[in-house]
Amino acid sequence: MIDHCAQLPGVTYGGKCVVVLSGGMDSATLLHLVVRYHMTPIAVSFNYGQKHRKELDFARQQVINLGERMSTVYEHKIIDVTALTAHISKSALTSDMPVPEGHYAADNMKQTVVPNRNMIMMSIAAGIAVNENAVAVATGVHAGDHFVYPDCRPQFVHDLEATIKSGNEGFGHPALFVYAPFLHKGKEEIAKIGDSLGVDYSTTWSCYNGREMHCGVCGTCVERKEAFSLADVSDPTVYEPVGR
Amino acid sequence: MIDHCAQLPGVTYGGKCVVVLSGGMDSATLLHLVVRYHMTPIAVSFNYGQKHRKELDFARQQVINLGERMSTVYEHKIIDVTALTAHISKSALTSDMPVPEGHYAADNMKQTVVPNRNMIMMSIAAGIAVNENAVAVATGVHAGDHFVYPDCRPQFVHDLEATIKSGNEGFGHPALFVYAPFLHKGKEEIAKIGDSLGVDYSTTWSCYNGREMHCGVCGTCVERKEAFSLADVSDPTVYEPVGR
Repeated sequence: MIDHCAQLPGVTYGGKCVVVLSGGMDSATLLHLVVRYHMTPIAVSFNYGQKHRKELDFARQQVINLGERMSTVYEHKIIDVTALTAHISKSALTSDMPVPEGHYAADNMKQTVVPNRNMIMMSIAAGIAVNENAVAVATGVHAGDHFVYPDCRPQFVHDLEATIKSGNEGFGHPALFVYAPFLHKGKEEIAKIGDSLGVDYSTTWSCYNGREMHCGVCGTCVERKEAFSLADVSDPTVYEPVGR
Repeated sequence: MIDHCAQLPGVTYGGKCVVVLSGGMDSATLLHLVVRYHMTPIAVSFNYGQKHRKELDFARQQVINLGERMSTVYEHKIIDVTALTAHISKSALTSDMPVPEGHYAADNMKQTVVPNRNMIMMSIAAGIAVNENAVAVATGVHAGDHFVYPDCRPQFVHDLEATIKSGNEGFGHPALFVYAPFLHKGKEEIAKIGDSLGVDYSTTWSCYNGREMHCGVCGTCVERKEAFSLADVSDPTVYEPVGR
Protein backbone atom coordinates (compact mmCIF):
# COMPACT_ATOMS: atom_id res chain seq x y z
CA MET A 1 0.00 0.00 0.00
CA ILE A 2 1.27 3.45 -0.87
CA ASP A 3 -0.12 5.97 1.58
CA HIS A 4 2.18 8.93 1.02
CA CYS A 5 2.15 11.47 -1.74
CA ALA A 6 5.79 11.26 -2.73
CA GLN A 7 6.69 7.64 -2.15
CA LEU A 8 6.07 5.76 -5.35
CA PRO A 9 8.45 2.96 -6.25
CA GLY A 10 10.05 3.28 -9.67
CA VAL A 11 8.25 0.19 -10.88
CA THR A 12 4.97 2.06 -11.06
CA TYR A 13 6.18 4.71 -13.47
CA GLY A 14 4.38 4.36 -16.74
CA GLY A 15 1.92 1.77 -15.47
CA LYS A 16 -1.85 2.02 -15.54
CA CYS A 17 -3.75 2.94 -12.39
CA VAL A 18 -7.49 2.52 -11.92
CA VAL A 19 -8.72 5.61 -10.06
CA VAL A 20 -12.06 5.64 -8.29
CA LEU A 21 -13.33 9.12 -9.12
CA SER A 22 -16.36 10.60 -7.38
CA GLY A 23 -16.33 14.10 -8.79
CA GLY A 24 -15.41 15.56 -5.41
CA MET A 25 -12.23 17.38 -4.48
CA ASP A 26 -10.37 14.44 -2.90
CA SER A 27 -10.52 12.13 -5.89
CA ALA A 28 -9.93 15.01 -8.33
CA THR A 29 -6.68 15.69 -6.49
CA LEU A 30 -5.92 11.97 -6.54
CA LEU A 31 -6.38 11.86 -10.31
CA HIS A 32 -3.87 14.68 -10.75
CA LEU A 33 -1.43 13.02 -8.37
CA VAL A 34 -1.60 9.74 -10.31
CA VAL A 35 -0.70 11.61 -13.49
CA ARG A 36 1.98 13.62 -11.65
CA TYR A 37 3.62 10.31 -10.71
CA HIS A 38 3.62 9.12 -14.32
CA MET A 39 0.89 6.57 -14.07
CA THR A 40 -1.81 6.44 -16.74
CA PRO A 41 -5.18 6.80 -15.05
CA ILE A 42 -8.23 4.75 -15.94
CA ALA A 43 -10.92 6.71 -14.13
CA VAL A 44 -13.93 4.80 -12.83
CA SER A 45 -17.06 6.48 -11.46
CA PHE A 46 -20.08 4.75 -10.06
CA ASN A 47 -23.68 5.61 -10.62
CA TYR A 48 -25.12 4.08 -7.48
CA GLY A 49 -28.43 5.88 -7.54
CA GLN A 50 -27.17 9.18 -6.19
CA LYS A 51 -29.93 11.72 -5.77
CA HIS A 52 -28.34 13.69 -8.57
CA ARG A 53 -25.85 13.13 -11.39
CA LYS A 54 -23.94 16.35 -10.83
CA GLU A 55 -20.89 14.67 -9.34
CA LEU A 56 -20.68 12.25 -12.29
CA ASP A 57 -20.77 15.16 -14.75
CA PHE A 58 -18.02 16.90 -12.82
CA ALA A 59 -15.96 13.69 -12.75
CA ARG A 60 -16.27 13.45 -16.52
CA GLN A 61 -15.19 17.07 -16.89
CA GLN A 62 -12.10 16.55 -14.74
CA VAL A 63 -10.92 13.61 -16.84
CA ILE A 64 -11.43 15.56 -20.06
CA ASN A 65 -9.70 18.68 -18.72
CA LEU A 66 -6.68 16.84 -17.33
CA GLY A 67 -6.35 14.88 -20.57
CA GLU A 68 -6.34 18.09 -22.59
CA ARG A 69 -3.76 19.61 -20.28
CA MET A 70 -1.52 16.56 -20.84
CA SER A 71 -2.27 16.50 -24.59
CA THR A 72 -3.89 13.09 -24.40
CA VAL A 73 -7.21 11.40 -23.72
CA TYR A 74 -7.76 9.43 -20.54
CA GLU A 75 -10.32 6.68 -20.25
CA HIS A 76 -13.34 7.24 -17.99
CA LYS A 77 -15.80 4.48 -17.21
CA ILE A 78 -19.10 5.28 -15.55
CA ILE A 79 -20.47 2.06 -14.14
CA ASP A 80 -24.12 1.69 -13.30
CA VAL A 81 -24.49 -0.18 -10.02
CA THR A 82 -28.07 0.88 -9.26
CA ALA A 83 -29.14 -2.77 -9.62
CA LEU A 84 -27.01 -3.46 -6.54
CA THR A 85 -27.89 -0.52 -4.37
CA ALA A 86 -31.58 -1.36 -4.26
CA HIS A 87 -30.53 -4.48 -2.35
CA ILE A 88 -27.99 -3.02 0.03
CA SER A 89 -28.92 0.51 0.89
CA LYS A 90 -30.87 2.35 3.51
CA SER A 91 -28.66 5.38 3.03
CA ALA A 92 -29.73 9.02 2.83
CA LEU A 93 -27.59 9.39 -0.29
CA THR A 94 -29.71 7.00 -2.31
CA SER A 95 -33.09 7.16 -0.61
CA ASP A 96 -35.70 9.72 0.29
CA MET A 97 -34.27 10.41 3.74
CA PRO A 98 -33.33 14.06 4.23
CA VAL A 99 -29.62 14.88 3.86
CA PRO A 100 -28.17 15.70 7.29
CA GLU A 101 -26.86 19.21 7.76
CA GLY A 102 -24.00 20.66 9.78
CA HIS A 103 -20.54 19.36 10.53
CA TYR A 104 -19.66 15.71 10.15
CA ALA A 105 -20.36 13.76 13.30
CA ALA A 106 -21.06 10.13 13.93
CA ASP A 107 -24.72 10.51 14.74
CA ASN A 108 -25.92 12.44 11.73
CA MET A 109 -23.42 11.15 9.19
CA LYS A 110 -23.89 7.43 9.75
CA GLN A 111 -27.07 7.69 7.73
CA THR A 112 -25.00 8.66 4.69
CA VAL A 113 -23.25 5.27 4.67
CA VAL A 114 -24.00 2.77 1.91
CA PRO A 115 -22.96 -0.48 3.62
CA ASN A 116 -19.62 -1.78 2.41
CA ARG A 117 -19.55 0.76 -0.40
CA ASN A 118 -15.79 1.24 -0.61
CA MET A 119 -15.12 -2.50 -0.63
CA ILE A 120 -17.62 -3.00 -3.45
CA MET A 121 -16.20 -0.14 -5.53
CA MET A 122 -12.59 -1.15 -4.94
CA SER A 123 -13.37 -4.80 -5.77
CA ILE A 124 -14.79 -3.74 -9.11
CA ALA A 125 -11.84 -1.38 -9.67
CA ALA A 126 -9.47 -4.26 -8.96
CA GLY A 127 -11.28 -6.48 -11.48
CA ILE A 128 -10.80 -3.77 -14.08
CA ALA A 129 -7.16 -3.37 -13.05
CA VAL A 130 -6.48 -7.09 -13.56
CA ASN A 131 -8.19 -6.99 -16.91
CA GLU A 132 -6.16 -3.93 -17.96
CA ASN A 133 -2.88 -5.20 -16.56
CA ALA A 134 -2.70 -2.13 -14.31
CA VAL A 135 -0.24 -1.74 -11.45
CA ALA A 136 -2.53 -0.05 -8.93
CA VAL A 137 -6.01 0.88 -7.81
CA ALA A 138 -6.31 4.34 -6.27
CA THR A 139 -8.68 5.68 -3.67
CA GLY A 140 -9.08 9.15 -2.20
CA VAL A 141 -9.92 8.04 1.34
CA HIS A 142 -8.51 10.47 3.89
CA ALA A 143 -8.01 10.91 7.61
CA GLY A 144 -11.01 13.22 7.99
CA ASP A 145 -13.34 10.30 7.30
CA HIS A 146 -11.79 7.86 9.75
CA PHE A 147 -14.02 8.71 12.66
CA VAL A 148 -17.31 7.94 10.96
CA TYR A 149 -16.50 5.54 8.14
CA PRO A 150 -14.68 2.30 8.99
CA ASP A 151 -14.07 1.66 5.29
CA CYS A 152 -11.89 4.77 5.07
CA ARG A 153 -9.53 3.69 7.88
CA PRO A 154 -5.95 2.42 7.48
CA GLN A 155 -6.83 -1.08 8.73
CA PHE A 156 -9.48 -1.46 6.06
CA VAL A 157 -7.19 -0.25 3.27
CA HIS A 158 -4.49 -2.61 4.51
CA ASP A 159 -6.86 -5.58 4.55
CA LEU A 160 -8.32 -4.58 1.20
CA GLU A 161 -4.93 -4.62 -0.46
CA ALA A 162 -4.13 -8.03 1.02
CA THR A 163 -7.41 -9.40 -0.35
CA ILE A 164 -6.84 -7.97 -3.82
CA LYS A 165 -3.35 -9.46 -3.87
CA SER A 166 -4.30 -12.92 -2.62
CA GLY A 167 -7.40 -13.07 -4.81
CA ASN A 168 -5.50 -12.38 -8.02
CA GLU A 169 -2.19 -14.01 -7.37
CA GLY A 170 -0.31 -15.58 -10.23
CA PHE A 171 -2.31 -14.27 -13.15
CA GLY A 172 0.71 -12.92 -14.95
CA HIS A 173 0.12 -9.23 -14.28
CA PRO A 174 2.11 -7.18 -11.78
CA ALA A 175 1.05 -7.53 -8.16
CA LEU A 176 -1.55 -4.80 -7.73
CA PHE A 177 -1.09 -2.29 -4.98
CA VAL A 178 -3.57 0.12 -3.45
CA TYR A 179 -2.60 3.75 -3.88
CA ALA A 180 -4.15 5.75 -1.03
CA PRO A 181 -1.93 8.83 -0.75
CA PHE A 182 -4.31 10.74 1.54
CA LEU A 183 -4.84 7.95 4.04
CA HIS A 184 -3.07 9.87 6.77
CA LYS A 185 -3.85 13.37 5.56
CA GLY A 186 -6.69 15.75 6.33
CA LYS A 187 -8.81 17.48 3.76
CA GLU A 188 -6.94 20.77 4.17
CA GLU A 189 -3.70 19.01 3.17
CA ILE A 190 -5.47 17.62 0.12
CA ALA A 191 -6.49 21.15 -0.86
CA LYS A 192 -2.88 22.30 -0.50
CA ILE A 193 -1.57 19.41 -2.62
CA GLY A 194 -4.24 20.01 -5.23
CA ASP A 195 -3.45 23.69 -5.33
CA SER A 196 0.20 22.90 -5.99
CA LEU A 197 -0.82 20.51 -8.79
CA GLY A 198 -3.10 23.06 -10.40
CA VAL A 199 -6.36 21.21 -9.75
CA ASP A 200 -9.32 23.32 -10.88
CA TYR A 201 -11.64 22.87 -7.91
CA SER A 202 -14.40 24.81 -9.65
CA THR A 203 -15.06 21.60 -11.61
CA THR A 204 -15.49 19.48 -8.49
CA TRP A 205 -18.73 18.85 -6.67
CA SER A 206 -19.09 18.02 -2.99
CA CYS A 207 -22.64 18.97 -2.01
CA TYR A 208 -24.97 16.13 -1.10
CA ASN A 209 -27.84 18.16 -2.50
CA GLY A 210 -27.91 18.47 -6.28
CA ARG A 211 -29.09 22.02 -6.76
CA GLU A 212 -27.49 24.57 -9.08
CA MET A 213 -25.00 25.76 -6.47
CA HIS A 214 -23.36 24.10 -3.48
CA CYS A 215 -25.79 24.48 -0.57
CA GLY A 216 -23.04 25.45 1.85
CA VAL A 217 -24.69 23.85 4.87
CA CYS A 218 -24.65 20.06 4.37
CA GLY A 219 -21.86 17.98 5.92
CA THR A 220 -19.65 17.88 2.85
CA CYS A 221 -20.11 21.58 2.08
CA VAL A 222 -19.07 22.48 5.62
CA GLU A 223 -15.99 20.27 5.28
CA ARG A 224 -15.17 21.67 1.86
CA LYS A 225 -15.29 25.29 3.06
CA GLU A 226 -13.21 24.43 6.10
CA ALA A 227 -10.56 22.63 3.99
CA PHE A 228 -9.97 25.62 1.73
CA SER A 229 -9.96 27.97 4.69
CA LEU A 230 -7.48 25.94 6.77
CA ALA A 231 -5.27 25.36 3.72
CA ASP A 232 -5.31 29.05 2.93
CA VAL A 233 -6.28 28.17 -0.63
CA SER A 234 -8.77 30.32 -2.52
CA ASP A 235 -12.18 28.61 -2.63
CA PRO A 236 -13.65 28.87 -6.14
CA THR A 237 -16.98 27.37 -5.05
CA VAL A 238 -20.17 29.36 -5.53
CA TYR A 239 -22.36 28.68 -2.49
CA GLU A 240 -26.05 29.46 -2.16
CA PRO A 241 -26.70 32.72 -0.33
CA VAL A 242 -27.14 32.25 3.43
CA GLY A 243 -30.75 32.20 4.52
CA ARG A 244 -32.02 30.84 1.23
CA MET B 1 -13.86 -17.60 9.42
CA ILE B 2 -15.66 -20.90 9.78
CA ASP B 3 -14.16 -23.44 7.45
CA HIS B 4 -15.54 -26.66 8.89
CA CYS B 5 -18.94 -28.19 8.53
CA ALA B 6 -19.66 -28.80 12.18
CA GLN B 7 -18.00 -25.93 13.96
CA LEU B 8 -20.52 -23.16 14.28
CA PRO B 9 -20.45 -21.02 17.40
CA GLY B 10 -23.70 -20.87 19.33
CA VAL B 11 -24.03 -17.16 18.59
CA THR B 12 -24.90 -17.84 14.98
CA TYR B 13 -27.93 -19.99 15.71
CA GLY B 14 -31.00 -18.21 14.49
CA GLY B 15 -29.07 -15.47 12.71
CA LYS B 16 -29.34 -14.54 9.07
CA CYS B 17 -26.70 -15.68 6.62
CA VAL B 18 -26.25 -14.28 3.13
CA VAL B 19 -25.48 -17.24 0.86
CA VAL B 20 -23.91 -16.76 -2.57
CA LEU B 21 -25.81 -19.29 -4.64
CA SER B 22 -24.72 -20.19 -8.15
CA GLY B 23 -27.12 -23.00 -8.95
CA GLY B 24 -24.30 -25.55 -8.89
CA MET B 25 -23.86 -28.46 -6.50
CA ASP B 26 -21.41 -26.77 -4.12
CA SER B 27 -23.55 -23.79 -3.23
CA ALA B 28 -26.72 -25.91 -3.17
CA THR B 29 -25.06 -28.05 -0.51
CA LEU B 30 -23.95 -24.87 1.28
CA LEU B 31 -27.52 -23.58 1.36
CA HIS B 32 -28.71 -26.80 3.00
CA LEU B 33 -25.85 -26.68 5.49
CA VAL B 34 -26.70 -23.11 6.49
CA VAL B 35 -30.27 -24.20 7.22
CA ARG B 36 -29.03 -27.34 8.98
CA TYR B 37 -27.06 -25.12 11.34
CA HIS B 38 -30.13 -23.06 12.12
CA MET B 39 -29.22 -19.94 10.21
CA THR B 40 -31.82 -18.25 8.03
CA PRO B 41 -30.44 -18.01 4.51
CA ILE B 42 -30.78 -14.97 2.29
CA ALA B 43 -29.75 -16.43 -1.04
CA VAL B 44 -28.04 -14.14 -3.53
CA SER B 45 -27.37 -15.09 -7.15
CA PHE B 46 -25.61 -12.98 -9.73
CA ASN B 47 -26.53 -12.49 -13.33
CA TYR B 48 -23.12 -11.56 -14.66
CA GLY B 49 -23.86 -12.16 -18.31
CA GLN B 50 -23.53 -15.93 -18.22
CA LYS B 51 -24.02 -17.50 -21.60
CA HIS B 52 -27.21 -19.02 -20.29
CA ARG B 53 -29.64 -18.48 -17.39
CA LYS B 54 -30.03 -22.15 -16.54
CA GLU B 55 -27.96 -21.97 -13.37
CA LEU B 56 -30.03 -19.01 -12.12
CA ASP B 57 -33.26 -20.93 -12.71
CA PHE B 58 -31.86 -23.90 -10.82
CA ALA B 59 -30.74 -21.63 -7.98
CA ARG B 60 -34.28 -20.25 -7.72
CA GLN B 61 -35.68 -23.78 -7.66
CA GLN B 62 -33.37 -24.86 -4.86
CA VAL B 63 -34.43 -21.97 -2.64
CA ILE B 64 -38.10 -22.68 -3.28
CA ASN B 65 -37.71 -26.42 -2.67
CA LEU B 66 -35.74 -26.05 0.54
CA GLY B 67 -38.21 -23.46 1.81
CA GLU B 68 -41.11 -25.83 1.18
CA ARG B 69 -39.27 -28.64 2.92
CA MET B 70 -38.79 -26.40 5.96
CA SER B 71 -42.37 -25.07 5.73
CA THR B 72 -41.22 -21.53 5.13
CA VAL B 73 -40.18 -19.17 2.37
CA TYR B 74 -36.58 -18.07 2.01
CA GLU B 75 -35.55 -14.88 0.31
CA HIS B 76 -33.68 -15.10 -2.99
CA LYS B 77 -32.19 -12.06 -4.66
CA ILE B 78 -30.96 -12.24 -8.25
CA ILE B 79 -28.68 -9.28 -8.82
CA ASP B 80 -27.90 -8.06 -12.31
CA VAL B 81 -24.22 -7.16 -12.54
CA THR B 82 -23.96 -7.25 -16.32
CA ALA B 83 -23.23 -3.50 -16.29
CA LEU B 84 -20.01 -4.41 -14.47
CA THR B 85 -18.87 -7.41 -16.40
CA ALA B 86 -18.64 -5.55 -19.70
CA HIS B 87 -15.86 -3.55 -18.06
CA ILE B 88 -13.95 -6.33 -16.35
CA SER B 89 -14.22 -9.50 -18.34
CA LYS B 90 -12.36 -11.29 -21.06
CA SER B 91 -13.66 -14.58 -19.75
CA ALA B 92 -15.00 -17.50 -21.76
CA LEU B 93 -17.98 -17.64 -19.41
CA THR B 94 -19.26 -14.25 -20.51
CA SER B 95 -17.82 -13.83 -23.98
CA ASP B 96 -17.86 -15.60 -27.31
CA MET B 97 -14.73 -17.63 -26.58
CA PRO B 98 -15.32 -21.40 -26.75
CA VAL B 99 -15.78 -23.15 -23.40
CA PRO B 100 -12.71 -25.29 -22.69
CA GLU B 101 -13.27 -29.03 -22.49
CA GLY B 102 -11.68 -31.78 -20.46
CA HIS B 103 -10.45 -31.90 -16.89
CA TYR B 104 -9.68 -28.74 -14.97
CA ALA B 105 -6.10 -27.62 -15.47
CA ALA B 106 -4.44 -24.27 -15.17
CA ASP B 107 -3.92 -23.72 -18.84
CA ASN B 108 -7.39 -24.28 -20.17
CA MET B 109 -9.32 -23.16 -17.12
CA LYS B 110 -7.70 -19.78 -16.59
CA GLN B 111 -9.81 -18.45 -19.41
CA THR B 112 -12.94 -19.15 -17.36
CA VAL B 113 -11.89 -16.63 -14.74
CA VAL B 114 -13.78 -13.35 -14.41
CA PRO B 115 -11.13 -11.20 -12.73
CA ASN B 116 -11.75 -10.69 -9.02
CA ARG B 117 -15.19 -12.24 -9.31
CA ASN B 118 -15.40 -13.75 -5.85
CA MET B 119 -14.26 -10.55 -4.16
CA ILE B 120 -16.88 -8.54 -6.05
CA MET B 121 -19.67 -11.00 -5.24
CA MET B 122 -18.66 -11.35 -1.59
CA SER B 123 -18.39 -7.55 -1.20
CA ILE B 124 -21.93 -7.16 -2.43
CA ALA B 125 -23.07 -10.04 -0.22
CA ALA B 126 -21.42 -8.34 2.75
CA GLY B 127 -23.22 -5.07 1.96
CA ILE B 128 -26.51 -6.96 2.00
CA ALA B 129 -25.51 -8.71 5.22
CA VAL B 130 -24.83 -5.40 6.97
CA ASN B 131 -28.13 -4.03 5.73
CA GLU B 132 -29.97 -7.14 6.93
CA ASN B 133 -28.14 -7.38 10.24
CA ALA B 134 -26.94 -10.85 9.27
CA VAL B 135 -24.25 -12.76 11.15
CA ALA B 136 -22.44 -14.30 8.18
CA VAL B 137 -21.79 -14.41 4.46
CA ALA B 138 -21.38 -17.90 3.02
CA THR B 139 -19.41 -19.13 0.05
CA GLY B 140 -19.09 -22.56 -1.49
CA VAL B 141 -15.41 -22.30 -2.41
CA HIS B 142 -13.67 -25.66 -2.09
CA ALA B 143 -10.24 -27.24 -2.22
CA GLY B 144 -10.71 -28.53 -5.77
CA ASP B 145 -10.55 -24.97 -7.06
CA HIS B 146 -7.41 -23.91 -5.20
CA PHE B 147 -4.99 -24.82 -7.93
CA VAL B 148 -6.49 -22.65 -10.64
CA TYR B 149 -8.41 -19.93 -8.84
CA PRO B 150 -6.54 -17.77 -6.31
CA ASP B 151 -9.85 -16.33 -5.09
CA CYS B 152 -10.92 -19.76 -3.86
CA ARG B 153 -7.85 -20.29 -1.66
CA PRO B 154 -7.70 -20.11 2.15
CA GLN B 155 -5.48 -17.02 2.14
CA PHE B 156 -8.01 -15.11 0.06
CA VAL B 157 -10.95 -16.13 2.26
CA HIS B 158 -8.95 -15.15 5.33
CA ASP B 159 -8.09 -11.73 3.90
CA LEU B 160 -11.63 -11.26 2.65
CA GLU B 161 -13.08 -11.79 6.10
CA ALA B 162 -10.59 -9.35 7.63
CA THR B 163 -11.59 -6.71 5.07
CA ILE B 164 -15.31 -7.22 5.65
CA LYS B 165 -14.77 -6.91 9.41
CA SER B 166 -12.57 -3.82 9.30
CA GLY B 167 -14.72 -2.13 6.66
CA ASN B 168 -17.90 -2.43 8.67
CA GLU B 169 -16.67 -2.13 12.22
CA GLY B 170 -18.83 -0.47 14.79
CA PHE B 171 -22.07 -0.26 12.90
CA GLY B 172 -24.09 -1.90 15.62
CA HIS B 173 -24.61 -5.26 13.96
CA PRO B 174 -22.80 -8.44 14.96
CA ALA B 175 -19.28 -8.82 13.57
CA LEU B 176 -19.81 -10.63 10.30
CA PHE B 177 -17.95 -13.84 9.68
CA VAL B 178 -17.31 -15.67 6.45
CA TYR B 179 -18.79 -19.16 6.41
CA ALA B 180 -16.75 -21.31 4.02
CA PRO B 181 -17.34 -24.88 5.22
CA PHE B 182 -15.83 -26.53 2.13
CA LEU B 183 -12.62 -24.51 2.09
CA HIS B 184 -10.53 -27.58 2.90
CA LYS B 185 -12.79 -30.18 1.32
CA GLY B 186 -12.87 -31.69 -2.13
CA LYS B 187 -15.94 -31.92 -4.33
CA GLU B 188 -16.50 -35.57 -3.52
CA GLU B 189 -16.78 -34.69 0.18
CA ILE B 190 -19.31 -32.03 -0.72
CA ALA B 191 -21.35 -34.65 -2.57
CA LYS B 192 -21.24 -36.89 0.51
CA ILE B 193 -22.33 -34.09 2.83
CA GLY B 194 -25.09 -33.06 0.45
CA ASP B 195 -26.28 -36.63 0.16
CA SER B 196 -26.53 -36.85 3.96
CA LEU B 197 -28.50 -33.59 4.01
CA GLY B 198 -30.89 -34.76 1.31
CA VAL B 199 -29.85 -32.26 -1.35
CA ASP B 200 -31.67 -32.94 -4.60
CA TYR B 201 -28.79 -32.65 -7.04
CA SER B 202 -31.13 -33.09 -10.01
CA THR B 203 -32.05 -29.42 -9.48
CA THR B 204 -28.45 -28.23 -9.69
CA TRP B 205 -26.64 -27.18 -12.82
CA SER B 206 -22.88 -27.35 -13.41
CA CYS B 207 -22.37 -27.39 -17.17
CA TYR B 208 -20.71 -24.34 -18.70
CA ASN B 209 -22.76 -24.91 -21.83
CA GLY B 210 -26.45 -24.11 -21.51
CA ARG B 211 -28.05 -26.85 -23.55
CA GLU B 212 -30.98 -29.00 -22.45
CA MET B 213 -28.77 -31.58 -20.77
CA HIS B 214 -25.35 -31.41 -19.11
CA CYS B 215 -22.78 -31.84 -21.91
CA GLY B 216 -20.68 -34.26 -19.85
CA VAL B 217 -17.38 -33.13 -21.35
CA CYS B 218 -16.69 -29.54 -20.20
CA GLY B 219 -14.48 -28.97 -17.15
CA THR B 220 -17.31 -28.67 -14.63
CA CYS B 221 -19.18 -31.69 -16.03
CA VAL B 222 -16.05 -33.83 -15.72
CA GLU B 223 -15.58 -32.66 -12.13
CA ARG B 224 -19.24 -33.23 -11.32
CA LYS B 225 -19.21 -36.81 -12.59
CA GLU B 226 -15.99 -37.53 -10.74
CA ALA B 227 -17.34 -36.10 -7.47
CA PHE B 228 -20.39 -38.38 -7.46
CA SER B 229 -18.29 -41.34 -8.49
CA LEU B 230 -15.62 -40.85 -5.82
CA ALA B 231 -18.26 -40.12 -3.17
CA ASP B 232 -20.14 -43.25 -4.15
CA VAL B 233 -23.29 -41.15 -4.38
CA SER B 234 -25.84 -41.83 -7.10
CA ASP B 235 -25.54 -39.20 -9.85
CA PRO B 236 -29.02 -37.99 -10.89
CA THR B 237 -27.63 -35.91 -13.76
CA VAL B 238 -28.80 -36.61 -17.31
CA TYR B 239 -25.79 -36.17 -19.59
CA GLU B 240 -25.83 -35.85 -23.35
CA PRO B 241 -25.11 -39.12 -25.15
CA VAL B 242 -21.42 -39.61 -25.88
CA GLY B 243 -20.46 -38.75 -29.46
CA ARG B 244 -23.19 -36.12 -29.86
